[in-house]
Amino acid sequence: MTEKVTAAHLALAGALADKAGAILRRYFRSDLLVESKHDNTPVTVADREAEAEMRALIEARFPDHGVLGEEHGRTRPEADYVWVIDPIDGTKSFISGVPLFGVLIALTFKGVPVLGVIDQPILRERWSGAEGRKTTLNGKPAATRACSALADATLYATAPDMFAGADADAFARVRKAVKLARYGADCYAYALLAAGFIDLVVEAGLKPYDFCALAPVVEGAGGEMSDWAGDALSLHSDGRVVAAGDPALAAAARAALVGK
Amino acid sequence: MTEKVTAAHLALAGALADKAGAILRRYFRSDLLVESKHDNTPVTVADREAEAEMRALIEARFPDHGVLGEEHGRTRPEADYVWVIDPIDGTKSFISGVPLFGVLIALTFKGVPVLGVIDQPILRERWSGAEGRKTTLNGKPAATRACSALADATLYATAPDMFAGADADAFARVRKAVKLARYGADCYAYALLAAGFIDLVVEAGLKPYDFCALAPVVEGAGGEMSDWAGDALSLHSDGRVVAAGDPALAAAARAALVGK
Repeated sequence: MTEKVTAAHLALAGALADKAGAILRRYFRSDLLVESKHDNTPVTVADREAEAEMRALIEARFPDHGVLGEEHGRTRPEADYVWVIDPIDGTKSFISGVPLFGVLIALTFKGVPVLGVIDQPILRERWSGAEGRKTTLNGKPAATRACSALADATLYATAPDMFAGADADAFARVRKAVKLARYGADCYAYALLAAGFIDLVVEAGLKPYDFCALAPVVEGAGGEMSDWAGDALSLHSDGRVVAAGDPALAAAARAALVGK
Repeated sequence: MTEKVTAAHLALAGALADKAGAILRRYFRSDLLVESKHDNTPVTVADREAEAEMRALIEARFPDHGVLGEEHGRTRPEADYVWVIDPIDGTKSFISGVPLFGVLIALTFKGVPVLGVIDQPILRERWSGAEGRKTTLNGKPAATRACSALADATLYATAPDMFAGADADAFARVRKAVKLARYGADCYAYALLAAGFIDLVVEAGLKPYDFCALAPVVEGAGGEMSDWAGDALSLHSDGRVVAAGDPALAAAARAALVGK
């Protein structure tokens, strides 16, 4: 059986992160032209420029692969291999001068993420994960820590207002059960989890370009990441995700989410 | 009239930040012995070691000055000059591996903060402010940005659960009026404000060692920081603070807090 993730895929993922990081370092904490989108998400020149440059690199190297990006939409979505990229996950942090945003790069095969990169270009930290490989942080092995009980866990989520209606109640059940809950880290929370500094991330309302890169990083570090029902993430997931460094904690969190 | 803040005070403040930063860099992202205090705040060995070392430096240089610290209490609180120090503001960030905690160092004169340092030892960023001087970031001038209307403002607060009862309603009025609201930065939010990246911070439940260092940094950068009623901060303030880069925004935020 042929490997789904090849050295050439990994090399391109690294080149994409290098390219995006160089652009974002140029714009970070500079005067930015912040445009307004219909949903009021802050979108910057940096965001669009980084995605366009990454798309050009993908087209040049793998012209038959598809691309899905936050800013410029879909190209060849029917391809077996589709790159799913978000040049700035955490644009609110980016425009606030907080170095906890990330460049997210995923490669999906038949809709399932098989490679993921989380890159923080200001702190120059890069987490890389791929199916069948150990996750690395700047080239060195990264691993989650053991923590099987909610009562011992440190939980992160980007913001309380990402949970609506019944999702807010479900999240509240988890938040009340953990030792420590914190807001505000976007993709960097999953990176911290993959390095063994925190235990649990529960979020909702995510798009494929927000979560596809995260699953290979978390799973290659020994953790577990799925939707709230426990199903593997794919391009068709509903955007409600739970990641845990310890698979036993993932199960406990999912049980709390459904009220068991 | 004699200057309240002398070059010798500023030199000691820098030396304190150097000392604490070196200790925190050693412990950050290492296996920490996390102890439990009665209020469940995570307190680490790093925290206590850094405060003890800072106290020793103060005693050696200014034996007649007082000291107030989070971990080791009060020494000579009746002195005209009292140093108010928090070796790790944002211990939750510190133990989660997030480099947004800070070393806070203030000098108060008759209870009023006249010198402040916010130091982030991982990013190696240091904001220094003092009465009658311009605030600096790593030695270069730092300034707030203009933003007079709540509708244009980026707001930070450490966490939604820091506001109880009527304070939560007051904070909600400000949050609903701003363009962008984010959680999770502790003292680093005030540093971002003093560098012109965000516009407003509203918090409650702070202790003197949480807020005394912040006011000179914010005010020396052109901003305004007070309690919710608009009174200058002192050792006797009630822990509800509002900081704005633009004095007009500070007034608008205070009006929203009281429901006007």
